[in-house]
Parts: sequence; structure tokens; C-alpha cells
Amino acid sequence: MQWSNVLASRSSRMKASEIRELLKLLDQPDIISFAGGIPDPALFPVDAFKEAFSEALTTQAKAALQYSVSEGYKPLRDWIAGEMAKIGIPCDAGNILITSGSQQALDYLGKLMLSPKDTALVGWPTYLGALGAFNAYEPNYDRLDPKANRTGADFAATAAAAGGRVKFAYLSVDFANPTGETMDRGAREAVIDLADEMDIAIIEDAAYQTLRFDGQAIPPILALEIARKGSIEDCRTLYCGSFSKSLAPGLRVGWICAAKEIVGRLVLMKQAADLHSSTANQIVTHKVASTIFNAHVAKLRATYMARRDHLLAALAREMPKGVEWTKPEGGMFIWLTLPKGVDGAELLAKSLQSERVAFVPGRAFFADGSNGNTLRLSFSCANEAQIDEGMKRLGRLIRDNT
Amino acid sequence: MQWSNVLASRSSRMKASEIRELLKLLDQPDIISFAGGIPDPALFPVDAFKEAFSEALTTQAKAALQYSVSEGYKPLRDWIAGEMAKIGIPCDAGNILITSGSQQALDYLGKLMLSPKDTALVGWPTYLGALGAFNAYEPNYDRLDPKANRTGADFAATAAAAGGRVKFAYLSVDFANPTGETMDRGAREAVIDLADEMDIAIIEDAAYQTLRFDGQAIPPILALEIARKGSIEDCRTLYCGSFSKSLAPGLRVGWICAAKEIVGRLVLMKQAADLHSSTANQIVTHKVASTIFNAHVAKLRATYMARRDHLLAALAREMPKGVEWTKPEGGMFIWLTLPKGVDGAELLAKSLQSERVAFVPGRAFFADGSNGNTLRLSFSCANEAQIDEGMKRLGRLIRDNT
Repeated sequence: MQWSNVLASRSSRMKASEIRELLKLLDQPDIISFAGGIPDPALFPVDAFKEAFSEALTTQAKAALQYSVSEGYKPLRDWIAGEMAKIGIPCDAGNILITSGSQQALDYLGKLMLSPKDTALVGWPTYLGALGAFNAYEPNYDRLDPKANRTGADFAATAAAAGGRVKFAYLSVDFANPTGETMDRGAREAVIDLADEMDIAIIEDAAYQTLRFDGQAIPPILALEIARKGSIEDCRTLYCGSFSKSLAPGLRVGWICAAKEIVGRLVLMKQAADLHSSTANQIVTHKVASTIFNAHVAKLRATYMARRDHLLAALAREMPKGVEWTKPEGGMFIWLTLPKGVDGAELLAKSLQSERVAFVPGRAFFADGSNGNTLRLSFSCANEAQIDEGMKRLGRLIRDNT
Repeated sequence: MQWSNVLASRSSRMKASEIRELLKLLDQPDIISFAGGIPDPALFPVDAFKEAFSEALTTQAKAALQYSVSEGYKPLRDWIAGEMAKIGIPCDAGNILITSGSQQALDYLGKLMLSPKDTALVGWPTYLGALGAFNAYEPNYDRLDPKANRTGADFAATAAAAGGRVKFAYLSVDFANPTGETMDRGAREAVIDLADEMDIAIIEDAAYQTLRFDGQAIPPILALEIARKGSIEDCRTLYCGSFSKSLAPGLRVGWICAAKEIVGRLVLMKQAADLHSSTANQIVTHKVASTIFNAHVAKLRATYMARRDHLLAALAREMPKGVEWTKPEGGMFIWLTLPKGVDGAELLAKSLQSERVAFVPGRAFFADGSNGNTLRLSFSCANEAQIDEGMKRLGRLIRDNT
């Protein structure tokens, strides 16, 4: 069988990530890892989930194990709509689609909007998984840079020259993966201005939104747009939320919050793609969220904040001159910029031989593969001793390779 | 916001199903329904699931709630590979991708292979959800009819004239949705001949495979192809399985069994699309399947078989002359062909006014919207009294409208 004869053109864009292959080699017990961007499993609210599954399979087992509607479990959508209202996004269950994690939300939004050769505006760097999801729909990427002051007409002309149209701007707004940085209010307002000018959509990735440790919360882009336009139904922002960072990722429950016109289209897409997300998991997520959400997230914030502080202190102590890093107000990541000429991927390969410390090289987060002198550290799963020893090793590794 | 400006061309193929809209109107307590193609929730192995969730969240909670690999939970893939071997498909976990139900398998296989204007060969009628999944990738359809004796060259020429290539043949082999019919061995071998001649893939939908009540089991197409070629790695058949009909659909666990070359590509696709299926649900499905699968499926078969028999007897008693129906050896469905000129959808609309009996009109199962004088009855959730009364009403409805 010549499989190449039957593959769609899009399949050429679905490649194994070199980074993931490299990180597999580093998954060994003597490695100190700051690579995985995953929640600390020791913090999962296990008892709450156990009790919720037991209750769901006692009081509503037939529903929990049966097919259900594509838009999602109504009490969960009601609860999410209530939370959205608290952050300046008044809406109802009709504005919410439950997805299998926010990764699926990104896939569906790419599928909804991108034809081959269309352009997506993204940050440089941006979330690697967003590029992966969008790649299946064969877009081009252009750089959204608040400092560059490019006009809508400029973006539109570049997209037209590449054979398509600009369809949306994708942004991770709070403590973004990979940089840990937060867009300020001015930058958020400027994105709405640009999108209004171009009549394009905005995908707002809020996966880390609840994990703010300090500083002042900034309204989501969708909240700022509703403040301008009066109603979510008149807004172009498609907000993607997730329980993966606040409760647990293994149940795959996330959501899209948007105008009903778009939610209606996404419901049809989900019906055709996987019918619906796990019924039991939605019921259980609703039970757990409506019982312990605020108290649990407060605990996460305190724990992750202490780890961030410890990592920042270790970086200040151990990093050689010429290395710079972000100071995130939340989330799980700190982003390092190395001296020019030092390549993150080469550094990681060398780490296999000598220091045995793992991190994610930064190049994969750039749609054009630039800026190799960067790397991402995650502090979510590291204890103080690992941070102290890990940064000592990383500092030495960088010094030895500069 | 002019959403039409930012939608992909594929979005025009994602439409609300008229049938689903009509069926929503029929979801009322006084209606006797044979419409839903869903398992009887009274037969779910609730205690086994409850125990399995409790055990998973006691002995391996951190894993069950955490991110996991895109290919799926290894013990579940091992178990499935063992079951595949029993039906003539020797393989290992590397040949299995866990999907969120077999609906997701169909979506991924369409995404892998279909570029716009390519052709998919399908039965007339075929599973409505397969057409829905494939439609997102903008294919044409051509009719796969064992009796028509069309050559590969003929199919290829038709596809080329439509602007693309034939990529695969899609077939539901056992007690198919909607007809309840089973492909005989000769027809399965003929499909392999045709696919070999054309060098295209075969998607074998085996969602109902375990629900055989009587008659002789026929090897899956993939088993027949392995018998010819020696190894799954040399086969073009992509087998889609599901736990939705054998255990419960609400956890969304299905699988693709295929050559490793294709499973590897699908793993990358899944990683980009939703990372992985629910970890907890995979662990629990493994526990339940490896404990009670055979005994439970035997119970389902006995129950559904009695319902089929009762429905066949009622049809013979109540249907007017000129109505024909299939005699399925398993599954959940019987397919009725009405006298020419009687339209299933019009009949259903009239049923709302008078007899209050629900079924699915047949037209939606035809890629070309032909053959409106058909309808699908499901016996999976009906008791004897409902069947007796329902067929009396349906017979009267057809007589009054012929």
C-alpha cells in the first residue's frame, strides 16, 4: 500500500515534534526536569473526584454512562456561565460549548475558520499546541507584535500575497505558555481595535487565567469587548477556558465561550467530530467545581507561587551574566533568553551528556523557527531542592557553553 | 461582526440535520419511539463501572487525573489487541490508537485522507454520522454497490472528473446502521479486490461487531486481508471499534486498529487535536472490559435478540402489503422499505399529528438524498408492549398514507 497516494495534503503539516522526541530521552529518574508543562499531580483534589464519581454513578448512572448532547451538560454550562459573569463576561449556557480540553477548542476554532493559505496572527513566541492544532488546516502565520505598530491593511496585504485572508488573532493573555507573561490592558484594547479594523475574530486562550499569584487582575479581552459593545452576541472574541490547570487535566474538560451564532456552528462541528465529551466527566467536573473550586484554586496559587519565588531566587543566584528571564505573575512558566548564539536545543542535547537537567528549547514556540537562544522552565512540579540543584546545573551548563 | 468573512469553506458543509430537528419535537412522553440508535441504559454494567472508578481513584488517582500519552493507555491497548487476535487480526498495542468513541475515529480518518473534491466510496444507504464526519473535509461521494460490478477504473474516472481521487471505501460490515444488514464473505473479499486494484484504503466500521445474535460470524475485512497478505503492516484496512455498544457510550472510548505506519500518523493528529482521550475513562474501561466483557455482552445479545424477534413478529403482523424489511442477525436496527411514493420524512411529520410513533426517515442515510421511501427502526430500547402498540400504530400510519 502506497499510503502517500491516499493522504490529504494537510497530513504533510502533521509532523513529530523534534522537541518531544528529545524530551522522551530525558524522561529518566536521574534527570531534574523543568520541561513538562503539567500540573503537580500531588495537588489534584482526589477525594473530591472520587466522591463525585461515586455519587454520579449512584444517583444518575444511566445518564452518566449514556450518550448526551453535543453542546455539553447543562448544569456545567450554567456553572461556567456564572464564573464568566464574575470576570466581566455576562452570558448564559447558550454561549458555552463544552470541549475535550481547551486543546480541542483550538482545533475546532482552526477547523471553523482556516482554509489552506489563510493567515493566523500569533505571538512570537506562542503556545506550541496552538500551532499544532492550526497546522492541520494549512494556514500561514504572521507575527502579532504590540510594539511593531503594523496596520490592519498591512496584515491584510501580507495575507493576500500569501494566497488567503487573515481569519483571526490568537492570544494567550495571562501567564502565557511559554513566556509566563501577561498582556496589559492597553495591549488587549489594541488587539480589539485591530480586529475591529480588519473584521477578524480573536481567539483568547485563557488556560491559566485562574492561576494569578499577585499583581492586579486584568479583564479578559472578551470582557473588554463586551464593555465596548454591550453584549457578547456582538463580540468577535472566542474565549477558551479549561479545567486542566485548575482541577485536573486527565478528564479532558474545557470550554468555548462566544456569541451564540458561533457556538451553534461549533455544536454541529462537535456532533460530527466526536458526538460529545464524556458525559460522566462533565457531571463529575460540575460536582467538583461547584463544591471546591475557589478553595482548591487558592491552594494551588499558594503552592505554585512559592515555587515561582524559589525559582526566581535561584535564577538570580545561579545564572551567568547575559541571561535574562521573565517574572510571571502566575501560571507555570518562566522564559529564559540566552546570550545570542547559544541554542536552546543544542544546550538540551548537551545536558543529556553532562548536567542532566531538562527544559524545553524555545525555537518550537516560534511559528518561523527563529529565536533559538531561548528556553522554557516550568516550576509547577519542582520542589525547592530540585530547583536549587537544577538551577546550579543549568547555570553551569550555560556558562560552559557560552 | 460578519462571521461569514472568517469561516473556512468547509463550514458550509456543516449543517443542522433536519432529521435531528424533527426528532427533537418527538421527544415527548406520549410518543413511542424507535428512533434513537442508543443502547438501553437499563443494561449498563453500572456496578462494574462504579467499582472501577473507585478503584482507579484509590490505587492510581494521580495517573487517572493527569495528562497521558496520545496513543492511549497501554493496558487497554494490550487488551484490545488481544481481542483483535481472537477475531483473526493478530496485532499488538502499537497497532491500536484509542479514540474518543469511534465517531472520532471516522473524523480522524477523514481528516487524514480527504482533501476537498476527493471521493469517498460509501454504501447507499450508509451511517449518517460517517457522512457528517467526512463532510468537514469537503469530499464527493460515489456509490459502492456490490451488485453494480463497477471497475476500479470506472470509480477512478468518476472521481477525477469531480476534481479529486478516490481515497477510501467506507463500510459498516456487521448489522450496519441503518439497515441491520451484514456483508457476506464474498462481498468483503470483493472490496479488498477493488481496493487492491485502486490502491485505496478501506475503513471498516465495526461498531456493532460484538452484538451478533445468531447466524455464522464472518471474519472482519481486516482479518481477510491479513489472511491474504500475512501481516497487518501490509494491509490497507483501517478497523474502527467501539465500547459504546458493548459497555457504555458515555465515557467515549473507541479505537482504530491498523498498520503502525498509519497509527503513528494518527497519534500525531490526535496530539494536535485533543492531546488524548480521558485518562480515567481509559483506565476504567480497561478494568471493566478485562473483568466482565464476555459475560456482559452475552447478556446484551440475549436481551436485544428477544427484542429483535418481537419486533420482527410485530412487523409481520401489522405491516400492510408492499412494506418490506430486513432480518438482521444482530445489532439494533431494522430497515423498512415503504411502497414507492411514500416518504419517510412526511410520514414522521404526520406521526406528530396522529399516531405519535417515532422512527428515523431513511433519506438522510443516502449521500445523494435519494430513496425517501425508507425508514429505520431501532429495537434496542423498546419493551414488548411498546413494540406491539408501536407497530400497530406504524402499520395504521402507513396504511392511512399509502
